[in-house]
Amino acid sequence: MIVAMQDEATEQHIQDVIERMVELGFNVHRTTGTNQTILAGVGTPAHFDVLEFKVLPGVHDAYRISSPYKLAGRNFRPEGTTVTFANGVVVGGAEVIVMAGPCSVESAEQIRLSAQLAAAAGAKFLRGGAYKPRSSPYSFQGMGLDGLKLLREVADETGLLVITEVMEISQIELMVPLIDCFQVGARNMQNFNLLRELGHTRTPVLLKRGMAATLEEVLLSAEYVLSGGNYDLILCERGIRTFETYTRNTMDISAIPVLQKLTHLPVMADPSHGVGIRDLVPPLALAAVAAGADGLLMEMHPNPDKAMSDGAQSLYPEQLQKLIAQLRLLAPVVGRTVA
Amino acid sequence: MIVAMQDEATEQHIQDVIERMVELGFNVHRTTGTNQTILAGVGTPAHFDVLEFKVLPGVHDAYRISSPYKLAGRNFRPEGTTVTFANGVVVGGAEVIVMAGPCSVESAEQIRLSAQLAAAAGAKFLRGGAYKPRSSPYSFQGMGLDGLKLLREVADETGLLVITEVMEISQIELMVPLIDCFQVGARNMQNFNLLRELGHTRTPVLLKRGMAATLEEVLLSAEYVLSGGNYDLILCERGIRTFETYTRNTMDISAIPVLQKLTHLPVMADPSHGVGIRDLVPPLALAAVAAGADGLLMEMHPNPDKAMSDGAQSLYPEQLQKLIAQLRLLAPVVGRTVA
Amino acid sequence: MIVAMQDEATEQHIQDVIERMVELGFNVHRTTGTNQTILAGVGTPAHFDVLEFKVLPGVHDAYRISSPYKLAGRNFRPEGTTVTFANGVVVGGAEVIVMAGPCSVESAEQIRLSAQLAAAAGAKFLRGGAYKPRSSPYSFQGMGLDGLKLLREVADETGLLVITEVMEISQIELMVPLIDCFQVGARNMQNFNLLRELGHTRTPVLLKRGMAATLEEVLLSAEYVLSGGNYDLILCERGIRTFETYTRNTMDISAIPVLQKLTHLPVMADPSHGVGIRDLVPPLALAAVAAGADGLLMEMHPNPDKAMSDGAQSLYPEQLQKLIAQLRLLAPVVGRTVA
Amino acid sequence: MIVAMQDEATEQHIQDVIERMVELGFNVHRTTGTNQTILAGVGTPAHFDVLEFKVLPGVHDAYRISSPYKLAGRNFRPEGTTVTFANGVVVGGAEVIVMAGPCSVESAEQIRLSAQLAAAAGAKFLRGGAYKPRSSPYSFQGMGLDGLKLLREVADETGLLVITEVMEISQIELMVPLIDCFQVGARNMQNFNLLRELGHTRTPVLLKRGMAATLEEVLLSAEYVLSGGNYDLILCERGIRTFETYTRNTMDISAIPVLQKLTHLPVMADPSHGVGIRDLVPPLALAAVAAGADGLLMEMHPNPDKAMSDGAQSLYPEQLQKLIAQLRLLAPVVGRTVA
Repeated sequence: MIVAMQDEATEQHIQDVIERMVELGFNVHRTTGTNQTILAGVGTPAHFDVLEFKVLPGVHDAYRISSPYKLAGRNFRPEGTTVTFANGVVVGGAEVIVMAGPCSVESAEQIRLSAQLAAAAGAKFLRGGAYKPRSSPYSFQGMGLDGLKLLREVADETGLLVITEVMEISQIELMVPLIDCFQVGARNMQNFNLLRELGHTRTPVLLKRGMAATLEEVLLSAEYVLSGGNYDLILCERGIRTFETYTRNTMDISAIPVLQKLTHLPVMADPSHGVGIRDLVPPLALAAVAAGADGLLMEMHPNPDKAMSDGAQSLYPEQLQKLIAQLRLLAPVVGRTVA
Repeated sequence: MIVAMQDEATEQHIQDVIERMVELGFNVHRTTGTNQTILAGVGTPAHFDVLEFKVLPGVHDAYRISSPYKLAGRNFRPEGTTVTFANGVVVGGAEVIVMAGPCSVESAEQIRLSAQLAAAAGAKFLRGGAYKPRSSPYSFQGMGLDGLKLLREVADETGLLVITEVMEISQIELMVPLIDCFQVGARNMQNFNLLRELGHTRTPVLLKRGMAATLEEVLLSAEYVLSGGNYDLILCERGIRTFETYTRNTMDISAIPVLQKLTHLPVMADPSHGVGIRDLVPPLALAAVAAGADGLLMEMHPNPDKAMSDGAQSLYPEQLQKLIAQLRLLAPVVGRTVA
Repeated sequence: MIVAMQDEATEQHIQDVIERMVELGFNVHRTTGTNQTILAGVGTPAHFDVLEFKVLPGVHDAYRISSPYKLAGRNFRPEGTTVTFANGVVVGGAEVIVMAGPCSVESAEQIRLSAQLAAAAGAKFLRGGAYKPRSSPYSFQGMGLDGLKLLREVADETGLLVITEVMEISQIELMVPLIDCFQVGARNMQNFNLLRELGHTRTPVLLKRGMAATLEEVLLSAEYVLSGGNYDLILCERGIRTFETYTRNTMDISAIPVLQKLTHLPVMADPSHGVGIRDLVPPLALAAVAAGADGLLMEMHPNPDKAMSDGAQSLYPEQLQKLIAQLRLLAPVVGRTVA
Repeated sequence: MIVAMQDEATEQHIQDVIERMVELGFNVHRTTGTNQTILAGVGTPAHFDVLEFKVLPGVHDAYRISSPYKLAGRNFRPEGTTVTFANGVVVGGAEVIVMAGPCSVESAEQIRLSAQLAAAAGAKFLRGGAYKPRSSPYSFQGMGLDGLKLLREVADETGLLVITEVMEISQIELMVPLIDCFQVGARNMQNFNLLRELGHTRTPVLLKRGMAATLEEVLLSAEYVLSGGNYDLILCERGIRTFETYTRNTMDISAIPVLQKLTHLPVMADPSHGVGIRDLVPPLALAAVAAGADGLLMEMHPNPDKAMSDGAQSLYPEQLQKLIAQLRLLAPVVGRTVA
């Protein structure tokens, strides 16, 4: 940490700041300029709050110079993390992985057809919600355990892996035997109790960025999962909330290369929630892969116009097929492949 | 709902939209202009998604013209809701209520002294976290059940009520006998499972606005609590995330009168989290009450410079005292009182 | 400036950074920790770009520790600036000043009646646009020079001062003899050529915050005016753009006390543009003064329902009257007066 | 326009709204539901303000159902606009056009070398600022007319076209004989007087999105240029301001396909300002073209570490070369070419 004192700070102010830094475990180096004194705290105390220093008397500003996350930082695994699934599918390797399926599991027929269409197009994972976080209590809330069982059944029939959203600690035990990857939604990115419990499982987790979360906060949330010992973690950009209302969110494509610089974890993109409008999903999906995404999570429905949720942003099956064909041509430009 | 068709929409497009509206339960009135056709859907189907219509072929735009929330709407209780607590304290009445205390319960001495100072200054509630949602897994996570018991004990000694944050369904049962009001933090504003369970209790709930939540989303979250039958609900503005980084968040003071227009629920303000800097808390607290807030939730610590969390935004006890004295003078200007 | 090197930075990286710092005019103090090297640059080169250092090889991060503005900084005039107008009215003193009037000058009758109503309610300035920046080229663009002359005429009749918006360098010469205060709108906050020219006049300037401007950027824009020698400068918070769309903008009330800490310049508030909805203007006006604003700029129209622009946010005359009566009671709570 | 009345609106409220609509030139169709009355205004009055209706007594909400822009709308030229330059280069056709060069013209040597490197890499335009809008009055402000002449000279030597920023009406006349395309910066997107004057020239204009501008506002600003009769207009996404501070702005890639749907004008992207960090420019440039951009505007400097402005975001010449090579492979995936 570095503390820059105000020009008019007194020696007493400076001594008080030094004392507090030493108390927290820093070695303090002092630079006295003609106008301004600078205090550099060397060492890494277990935890400290840089804000605390910003409001001390005589302080101009204070800066944290080490990352507040450790296990999530690129330094921890400079070579990068790959997450390997049951059937050998790898996220974070050379191949760009597509996960597709409807927003919600609605019926056996709907999810079976979805799986067949996703597999035929080239997806490796079937997505579909069994427990749904809906803004309104009057909206469809999902099929629950029956939905999970259907996901497993049709995924096995079609050779796909299952990814589905977990909203609540009590769902974890239920899900572990039935799914291949937990999905933590944007609204739960800072549900720290849930993250801690997922860190104690050995099932991979895909963690979506919260709609108002900075990239540093994403990595701090990742740290909750990693510090429990679960290293099979994938991050996912899904759009942030901005003043622009034409799209549901603003897809922050730059988050992909930035996260790949800051962390060793694979980074995927969810253009469906990022834009919220079906016809904008393919251009944003192409953009995400061009910018280096390790995979795509997308909503596709056999009949989007009759979907019980998120129909407006679900691809028609033929759109998914066409998109994956384009991705096969685009991926090699950035040194990747799509199977 | 209203659907405005594109100038170039065909009769088939129009018929398809009408059919879908009827299917959902709307009576459709059609206005055919020289350029544009407008379809007005009258009636209120249980749930429908206006986005679904925006992407139908031939549609220019679609507008929801009824609120998606019902129990939270002002119409439901035009006279306004008051929440009455054990000792007769009322939130939502003529009196502006102050809730104050440290971010976290740290020890018996610290919380006892906090309670004494809060009570002496004129606060009616003691706040203090026993379970803490912290961005970093390496930060202090709270004293848990021991903290709750301490809160109860010192509140009873000083005649205060207890408000504390609930993060997890499993904490509800534990908390009910020990506290007077649940606090749902900004990060949990859309933890719908938690909200639904709180709706099944009969303990009052203070629900904070999420940092990227629109006011409509706040009211939809309120609906989760209300629809469970718990009408003792208080809303709380605590700052939203914007591009300005000087303050921790941007306190949206206008949210107070807007919410009071849209809903019958009491609306409080938390300037401590809103700005994150101690010396800015008093001016923002005064502003919130001038704009009509029903109460204030603020952090105060007997020794903020040694606080284990949020020290930078915690008031010194004498600041709280001076602020409440000012509030006593200001409240009558807007037709309120501070005891 | 401080540069924190990466843990893995080489000695060559460090030497390159030091060399560049010296080249710019810094004296460099080096702190070598077990993991990390920190370079403190002491001295204040005329201009440098901290971003340049952030991307140098081996650099973890770089921090500017002095303000990029000088004349606008609080240190430059710790006692604060007051702006004194022709008739003895002072902005930045004990009195809270109200400036009121219609969005646009529409006719002699309309602006004369506006002036009479504003003066009767207690306002000291008449506002009114003669040149209007309108988002659409098809909207009313103002009466131009005729509007300016009308403003002067009716202000003189009623003992008011005139404030009006300047959009363009070529309007300055025209305006100087007719007005008392230039208003620079949010959209022109970074029209640096215009600001530079206004700095060469000796007519007071009210500078509004841009809708996406940080407070640091506001002060850098202020620096353009001040560095031309015009110290009669007033800042004005008028709402920033956020994700919330219920209000036209989000009024950042915290900007008022923050700016008053960072700068010696008076700080006013414009709740009309801040919220954009008539009935929300009074609570936000009260909030701004409670938070310490030196004055209020507000739209009032004799007949808002027939206004040619901004009718929805213009107060009815009786609303302005009632509001100023409340302000007279509120101001003393924060040590101010309203005449 | 559509006006949805409140459930509790009286017949008098309804009549007042109808009267005002008729006054503005609408034909009004009324739909009376069991709870709610809906008024559809058919016809297109020259200008009206939908906000005015939102605050009328008894009104629930009001919606504009026609675009506020006309000439910029897709309908006006469904086949799309192409802008053809002196040497036959076309923006908005099959070819993706690259414009590259330094932030500022610094010297004859620097700009000549820049032009040679840009041309060699495959760029068609040389960019470079002669008049610079700088946040701080103490930063380098550009070489002015000498810079313009140098741009023309070296562009002619290398077969490039010249694009440069215009900040001020008085610069237009000076620039017309020396440049091929005006660039309007983000800070001037709503400098309506400047836009109107540019509309009266016949020199092409590239208009950048303001950092807090909605896409509708971009199109309204475009309307100012088009309504003057200048149809050689290109739009440019350059990042918007959000809460994320790791990047200078947040590049809104979705703006590209959205604008292409809403307007007939070509849409380019400026990833340099969008992200502000050199190494992030190539992935975002690839993303923009993958999403359909008609061209790229990028900063490249022969020696970015010594640049007088924006060095941190300027590409090294070899980065530009490598990027254009990748673009040549990527463009065909989306049906485009790069020469």
